[in-house]
Amino acid sequence: MPFISSAGSGIENPILEQGRLARELERKGSKLIKINIGDPAMYFRLPKNIVWAYKKALEEGHTAYLEEQGLRELREAVSDRYLDRYGISFAGENVVITQGVSEALSFMNQGMIDGGDSAVIFRPFFTEYLTYLKLSGGVPILPALDESNNWDINISELERLLKNNKGRKPKYMLMTNPNNPTGTTLSGKAIREAIEIAKDNDIFIVSDEVYDELLYNGAEFTSVGKFAKGIPHMLLNGASKNYMATGLRVGFAIFPEEDPKSQALKKVFIGMAGARLSANTPSQYAILEGMRNKEKHNEFMHEKLLQIADRSRLAARLINETGFFTAVPPNSAFYLFARIHLNKLSIKDDKEFVELLLKEQQIQLTRGSGFGMEGFIRIVTLPSEAVLTEAVERIRKFCEGHKK
Amino acid sequence: MPFISSAGSGIENPILEQGRLARELERKGSKLIKINIGDPAMYFRLPKNIVWAYKKALEEGHTAYLEEQGLRELREAVSDRYLDRYGISFAGENVVITQGVSEALSFMNQGMIDGGDSAVIFRPFFTEYLTYLKLSGGVPILPALDESNNWDINISELERLLKNNKGRKPKYMLMTNPNNPTGTTLSGKAIREAIEIAKDNDIFIVSDEVYDELLYNGAEFTSVGKFAKGIPHMLLNGASKNYMATGLRVGFAIFPEEDPKSQALKKVFIGMAGARLSANTPSQYAILEGMRNKEKHNEFMHEKLLQIADRSRLAARLINETGFFTAVPPNSAFYLFARIHLNKLSIKDDKEFVELLLKEQQIQLTRGSGFGMEGFIRIVTLPSEAVLTEAVERIRKFCEGHKK
Repeated sequence: MPFISSAGSGIENPILEQGRLARELERKGSKLIKINIGDPAMYFRLPKNIVWAYKKALEEGHTAYLEEQGLRELREAVSDRYLDRYGISFAGENVVITQGVSEALSFMNQGMIDGGDSAVIFRPFFTEYLTYLKLSGGVPILPALDESNNWDINISELERLLKNNKGRKPKYMLMTNPNNPTGTTLSGKAIREAIEIAKDNDIFIVSDEVYDELLYNGAEFTSVGKFAKGIPHMLLNGASKNYMATGLRVGFAIFPEEDPKSQALKKVFIGMAGARLSANTPSQYAILEGMRNKEKHNEFMHEKLLQIADRSRLAARLINETGFFTAVPPNSAFYLFARIHLNKLSIKDDKEFVELLLKEQQIQLTRGSGFGMEGFIRIVTLPSEAVLTEAVERIRKFCEGHKK
Repeated sequence: MPFISSAGSGIENPILEQGRLARELERKGSKLIKINIGDPAMYFRLPKNIVWAYKKALEEGHTAYLEEQGLRELREAVSDRYLDRYGISFAGENVVITQGVSEALSFMNQGMIDGGDSAVIFRPFFTEYLTYLKLSGGVPILPALDESNNWDINISELERLLKNNKGRKPKYMLMTNPNNPTGTTLSGKAIREAIEIAKDNDIFIVSDEVYDELLYNGAEFTSVGKFAKGIPHMLLNGASKNYMATGLRVGFAIFPEEDPKSQALKKVFIGMAGARLSANTPSQYAILEGMRNKEKHNEFMHEKLLQIADRSRLAARLINETGFFTAVPPNSAFYLFARIHLNKLSIKDDKEFVELLLKEQQIQLTRGSGFGMEGFIRIVTLPSEAVLTEAVERIRKFCEGHKK
């Protein structure tokens, strides 16, 4: 009997896998360019009113455990936000505050997946989706998004994989919109069709919308909740990206529907939240202020979005100009997912690419295979234009040096 | 195929199970006495220097993700603390910062337990131990602590249950010292004997020492790390109780040994920490200050401990004087675990006892069966002497009203 469980023995995060080497290089004096972690808080300060509210909560002694489901007022603010933005109506009672969306993913898989159960995750996908599914012994069904159609859902691919999954009904279908790592949104048409398929196959729908305010280049976006009215589903969101508050660990799991499945899963979430008693307390008061003060928030986001859009457009243009990559221009979030023209290089695969790139050019980024799509790299487009220009220039030099 | 997983369908926290009813009663105007949650932050303010450091971290922009393993300086402060207090030496590299001890329990079980694996948990136990073991499909082996010997480990009971667990070797043995819910410490002799047994049976040792500064009445306490030198083990600790910082969610998982098992488990913990990217960032800076500023900390704890000791002694004396209970006088933490003389009452069991008590006397406390020991109640002894006196008086009245 091995000491480590089967779940535990496989755990890894491709986004962080070079962390140890990167820290070593830094200790030796290397100036790394880190474009591997999508952390806006590394580049933008938390809005002042959120800092103020966080400090106020500390001064007022909000440092004890909160109700396990999360601060009631914050849950109601989440409800207000969805009504405001999308006309989707649900009670604050139907929200569970989690320690980031990660914790919601953990609860979701522990709550739905028994060993051998399957779930639909579109690829390329945010790494954690697969990690938490596997931790619960689940088996992924991985339809590829359509690179030739701005990474939209490929409905026939979805249908084909569901048909091939003989007899085993997937527990859930997880959409990410806007998508990480592609930085693109799903079309309303594709979402509606995917929802229909999920409904017909009795598959619970999950939509991770944690980047839903980070839209530019005229991106089309609608919450899955708008199309899935009356159909069992859960929405995931949080403060990490839209409020640039990654280190505060505030996520939202939303159960808009009153059907038995949605409500049973909500009950499990509250149970799991009760097992760990409470999320960080003062940070919930901080985000409450961020959500209530809409004017300040919109002003802040407007300014930051202009910068992010510029940076993303620049990175996409530069990387495509190298001649070594093809990247769908992003319209949301802050990622660029670029196909490497490996046929031009004396490099085996994306894994070797990122390893050599770190060692030779001191650039840390993530391999596409970590997101379920081989032969790509993901670039975080948050750094300044100067840094992004320097990064792409080093990547170009690196490719020139490894030309076939 | 049921929608909710087998793990998810059983989840509950007996400490919180009356929460919904309690909140309802409060909305209707009832003045509840809540002695169900061991949350010192409800009664004592976070030390001023910790608040100051928390605010400073926010002002300095420490709001991004941290290294997944946790703030390096904080891990080193944990290492310093164990060297200082117990002469136990390990590198900061061997510490993983978790979102409270709860998260460490989750990582531990996901990392070691495959479905059907067993683990030794002494009872009465902190509810979460069983919750997280079951979530991973584990089976508990539950030797009873010895009520007649101040809730010390009963070595022959431990040996008997291990012998009965034919062929199945438990993955770990979890000691809690000081214990929740009994508020008592284990003797050095019992710890040493239990460690020997674990060693002989090749069982990984875990010791939850999250209350290790909350000692009074001349309590004897030594860290398991002191006795388990050279034997694979993990120590759990954190800021929730010793720093009265529950709502900050800062826990420590410590792997003092370099053997393959300890290090494999540490690697899994770092992997699991990487899956959720980061714990709350500014709170780690806050606790760093709390741990570094030993003088302030000792001064703060000295004062609070005098109060806690007085309250615990009072609660123990009053509850024993009612004639309806027998409670071992606590010497640590802030709990009183009292055996109900059910033979004197027209009440079936501890579950009915706490349900009726809440409805009739507006007192919320936790049933012993929630900690794996039927026929007891757990009282949190943190409230003021006036509140504790009132609580016990109401409990006495309640018992008088239900006398056989």
